[in-house]
Amino acid sequence: MSQFGYKGKGLEFLTSNKIEIGSQVKIHADSIYSGVIMPRYEHSDDHHIVLKLKSGYNIGLELDKIKKIELESAPLMKKETVHHSQPNPKLPKILLLSTGGTIASRIDYRTGAVTPALTAAELNASVPELATIANIDAEVLFSEYSENLLPQHWIKIAEKLDSYAKSGYDGIIVAHGTDTMQYTASALAFSLAGFPKPVALVGSQRSSDRPSSDAALNLIAATRFLIEVHSPGIFVVMHNNSSDDEIACNWATRVRKNHTSRRDAFKTIGGPPAYIIKSRSIEKDKQFDIPKREYVPRIKFDSRVLLLKYYPGLDPKIVDYAIDSGYRGIVIEGTGLGHVGKTMYEVIEKAKKNGLFIGMTSQCIDGMVRMTVYDSGRDLLNLGVMPLGNMIPETALVKTMWALANSKDSNDMVKLMKENIALEFSD
Amino acid sequence: MSQFGYKGKGLEFLTSNKIEIGSQVKIHADSIYSGVIMPRYEHSDDHHIVLKLKSGYNIGLELDKIKKIELESAPLMKKETVHHSQPNPKLPKILLLSTGGTIASRIDYRTGAVTPALTAAELNASVPELATIANIDAEVLFSEYSENLLPQHWIKIAEKLDSYAKSGYDGIIVAHGTDTMQYTASALAFSLAGFPKPVALVGSQRSSDRPSSDAALNLIAATRFLIEVHSPGIFVVMHNNSSDDEIACNWATRVRKNHTSRRDAFKTIGGPPAYIIKSRSIEKDKQFDIPKREYVPRIKFDSRVLLLKYYPGLDPKIVDYAIDSGYRGIVIEGTGLGHVGKTMYEVIEKAKKNGLFIGMTSQCIDGMVRMTVYDSGRDLLNLGVMPLGNMIPETALVKTMWALANSKDSNDMVKLMKENIALEFSD
Repeated sequence: MSQFGYKGKGLEFLTSNKIEIGSQVKIHADSIYSGVIMPRYEHSDDHHIVLKLKSGYNIGLELDKIKKIELESAPLMKKETVHHSQPNPKLPKILLLSTGGTIASRIDYRTGAVTPALTAAELNASVPELATIANIDAEVLFSEYSENLLPQHWIKIAEKLDSYAKSGYDGIIVAHGTDTMQYTASALAFSLAGFPKPVALVGSQRSSDRPSSDAALNLIAATRFLIEVHSPGIFVVMHNNSSDDEIACNWATRVRKNHTSRRDAFKTIGGPPAYIIKSRSIEKDKQFDIPKREYVPRIKFDSRVLLLKYYPGLDPKIVDYAIDSGYRGIVIEGTGLGHVGKTMYEVIEKAKKNGLFIGMTSQCIDGMVRMTVYDSGRDLLNLGVMPLGNMIPETALVKTMWALANSKDSNDMVKLMKENIALEFSD
Repeated sequence: MSQFGYKGKGLEFLTSNKIEIGSQVKIHADSIYSGVIMPRYEHSDDHHIVLKLKSGYNIGLELDKIKKIELESAPLMKKETVHHSQPNPKLPKILLLSTGGTIASRIDYRTGAVTPALTAAELNASVPELATIANIDAEVLFSEYSENLLPQHWIKIAEKLDSYAKSGYDGIIVAHGTDTMQYTASALAFSLAGFPKPVALVGSQRSSDRPSSDAALNLIAATRFLIEVHSPGIFVVMHNNSSDDEIACNWATRVRKNHTSRRDAFKTIGGPPAYIIKSRSIEKDKQFDIPKREYVPRIKFDSRVLLLKYYPGLDPKIVDYAIDSGYRGIVIEGTGLGHVGKTMYEVIEKAKKNGLFIGMTSQCIDGMVRMTVYDSGRDLLNLGVMPLGNMIPETALVKTMWALANSKDSNDMVKLMKENIALEFSD
């Protein structure tokens, strides 16, 4: 038996003290702590309880060290006083799809509810500026931290977006956890290449109950981008620097989360962001240009692809394992210009003979793979390894999964890999 | 039968035309090409020959398309007119160990010799400024592109350095390919923690026969750093920006090759370089400080460690494979603050039960892993995953290989992993 992840002693402690998840409490232990009792997850032990402090941080308190727990107030109940601001027919229409993540977890964190959910009413209430610039309809697609998203989630998001391709919305926001946002962005960029509306993936690095939260500003900037710029395609909209005056609008296949915690963690690799959203203007990078293409959704992914980072001492047998396990492709994060040690040549040759696609990217992340400069690169080309230009490794992985699922044979697949479908090659 | 990698038709073509590797030739094909015949590697096909053009680039020419080949001059023979500049007893003594790579391949590229080798005489001839600031002895340890280096090469370099720990040299330069230089730097920093002399790993991103080569300036800066600063420990000395006025001296465990081709590809992660070497001064970063420690070399590595980058769709069975194959540790490049999807929990638990060390780093590269912020992180902590702070993934991999080989049991190993041995934790 468990309640919001509490079980055994932890659950007993809470029950006997009549404390519910989401309650504001004061706990006397080695020190006195005030905060909200948070839910726990299934793998947690049973001798800690988790308290969210006013600072926004969670701490785990050991049951044995708790001298006293005092209830200060019961969980805030979601008030169903939905302030439906009357839609203003003069304003553009925006759809907000929520998939989960920190940006959608404000309510979760404040009340202790397990399932984060962002309704239109909650959104309007938390970011009142939005209602003044657009009419926003919100829809909860699912509620997952993005580290738990899988290719089947990409498919659900893409299918949902596709269903709105001809709708009356001016643009669509996808609220998404930041951990795997770049993978989802690439997946949408390939599967929905040519999508006729602007789509902005928006996340936040700090939940909105923290003073430094980036959630509201990212949402406002994304909304402004969608209704002011009208640039179709998939973008990732997040802080551009450590202050609040610039939000970057990064093109889906060229963006990477480059810092664990900074609000400006997302960076366009190999150049500036496609757009910079400032308080009074939105500036387009001169180089940024998406070639127009017909919208033909191809929403399939084959996840039998291994992303393999090469390093000194890597046992080549891992490639044998991939062959034997039915993988259909390997994206290598090679060293430098796109190399691996000679120890790998034999298994790479074997993988090619077994029909696997092998693509080369660089663990340097930035810069072009150039496999004709050194013998090591030329040897790998001879073995049938495909150089993937300046495609970033995570994008190359997603593209390989996509190309394998949307091609009729290996020639067709290689053709797709070479084609610049969604600006994944930027040079 | 093969000669410098040429075999079959290619070898026949060269032999019948009496052309040796290293010859200056003019080739008539779709166009006329002038250049030097380059060696090839064992996996190359037999219907191309490789020509190094004056621009410094190599091209492969298809035999079937070659109409005529003309010998312009025979290979430049290494002239043994060794200009041994008389050692100046007033100057400091520097040892230069060459391991291969672009920096040591000038002679290779110019004459077409297969084995790059940098002798003291060649070095003095190519960078005459060096002889005015130090007496340099050179020793060729091996000649490999660094993508071919393995942990056993780290051991050879470390043992060689150890043998000079009490020598009369003021410092030691290790000429090294750039592809895996950061791995070797970390390996030396751990195995030779407390090394009493300054050691500078130096590479070049462009070979010295190209006008834009960074080889000479990096070598001069490294030499100046060794004799002017006297800061013991392992550093990586490479260009700091795209001009030639600043060379960065990066601390071994905090540096990463972040661009495939730029001369300033190497960056200290999470802060500025330890030193900036300018034309008239060497500036130390105020934060940089190596705690003094007794020099006790521990030169062993266990390469049974898997560096595993998490991504959506990663098949958890790869961890079963690692367990079954006798791996002793896994360094995960998780998402964000140090997460993996729930699909991985079960195999991680199994790996822990089987005694594997599992360390968590972030694929963001920059920033701290913080596994107490979200449930996903706390779940992984409960499963026994060790958060590795802001250690960069490649350094964490090398440290895990090192700690496994230099500890008597798993508690001892974990203790080593937590200890800040060589500034691998910088916060």
